[in-house]
Amino acid sequence: MRQKGFTIWFTGLPSSGKSTLARLVQQALDEVGLDVVVLDGDEIRQRLSKDLGFSKEGREENIRRIAYVAKLLTKIGGIAIVAAISPYRESRERARMEIGDFVEVFVDCPLPVCMQRDVKGLYLKANRGEIQNFTGISDPYEPPADPDIIVRTDQESPEASLKKILAKLAELRYFPRSLVKHLVNDKPDPVKVKKTGMMLGQPWSV
Amino acid sequence: MRQKGFTIWFTGLPSSGKSTLARLVQQALDEVGLDVVVLDGDEIRQRLSKDLGFSKEGREENIRRIAYVAKLLTKIGGIAIVAAISPYRESRERARMEIGDFVEVFVDCPLPVCMQRDVKGLYLKANRGEIQNFTGISDPYEPPADPDIIVRTDQESPEASLKKILAKLAELRYFPRSLVKHLVNDKPDPVKVKKTGMMLGQPWSV
Repeated sequence: MRQKGFTIWFTGLPSSGKSTLARLVQQALDEVGLDVVVLDGDEIRQRLSKDLGFSKEGREENIRRIAYVAKLLTKIGGIAIVAAISPYRESRERARMEIGDFVEVFVDCPLPVCMQRDVKGLYLKANRGEIQNFTGISDPYEPPADPDIIVRTDQESPEASLKKILAKLAELRYFPRSLVKHLVNDKPDPVKVKKTGMMLGQPWSV
Repeated sequence: MRQKGFTIWFTGLPSSGKSTLARLVQQALDEVGLDVVVLDGDEIRQRLSKDLGFSKEGREENIRRIAYVAKLLTKIGGIAIVAAISPYRESRERARMEIGDFVEVFVDCPLPVCMQRDVKGLYLKANRGEIQNFTGISDPYEPPADPDIIVRTDQESPEASLKKILAKLAELRYFPRSLVKHLVNDKPDPVKVKKTGMMLGQPWSV
């Protein structure tokens, strides 16, 4: 009787562009009346995991909690958009198993570009040794082996990444292409990657 | 374009009948195609709050987490059914404020009846001093000052409590009376409280 629920899971280094893309996807799906919620890593840390640290155990438990909430939202036909570093491959695979309708988006961006963006000034602090267990600097990041979608935020505009994601979701039959205006005037393969070199600072660093 | 979300919040002593009623309401709404999820106190402790204890702070944080998840589910048009002791009035009022569409059900049952049911054998342990901070024994329970619904599980059958709850939800316009079979053959005031005395052990103790 209603939309099929699913979870879009953005994983990537700090400042790779996860939250920005999550908001863009949210906006696009919201506009057409789909029921969508963003579970942002920072907010979840505050709301569900204040007690947890950034050790491997702390991170794993945090991801388990996010996966549980995403599962509930998905189960009732909602769209959960997760934006969380989620550095461990195994944690993400467990989330996929638990949630079922799970679309993993690897927000791929080279570390030097993320460091230059440094949206929250945390790379600077991590490099100074003021933050321990910082992913990419003093803590590992395991890129997905076989993500459903890869976006290259150092090479594509946010709008291009957005279209790539929406096109894949339509291809997976989560909604018809005709529903989303971003896809309506495009050819079946709508991804036009701008090959104009690095897009440092622009517009991702905002 | 779809159902209006809301949260039904069951509060009451251990063994008062919260989980039983939550499951009955879930079943009734599920049957007619509404999107409904039960957030049961025990499961939430395991999934979101393993780290928290049963001090006042631990309980308050646990309720804040449940309220956050219920808010997300409600926001996307789902029905969240919370079954949690939630002993503090102020915590429940904060949940109401945060969630908005919030229906508080006081599962009212005298302590001696709850102790006799003792579904999980915890009153016994608490009385022996094997469990600390046990609500009703060694920890306070603050009944709601002005709940939306009161069910008297020592005097009503589960079916009568269920009808009372469904009737109130229909009255609040969360769904039409005609949708739910439990209400279809009833008069506008469908609550028929069985005044046959205490229903100890039957069928609540199952």
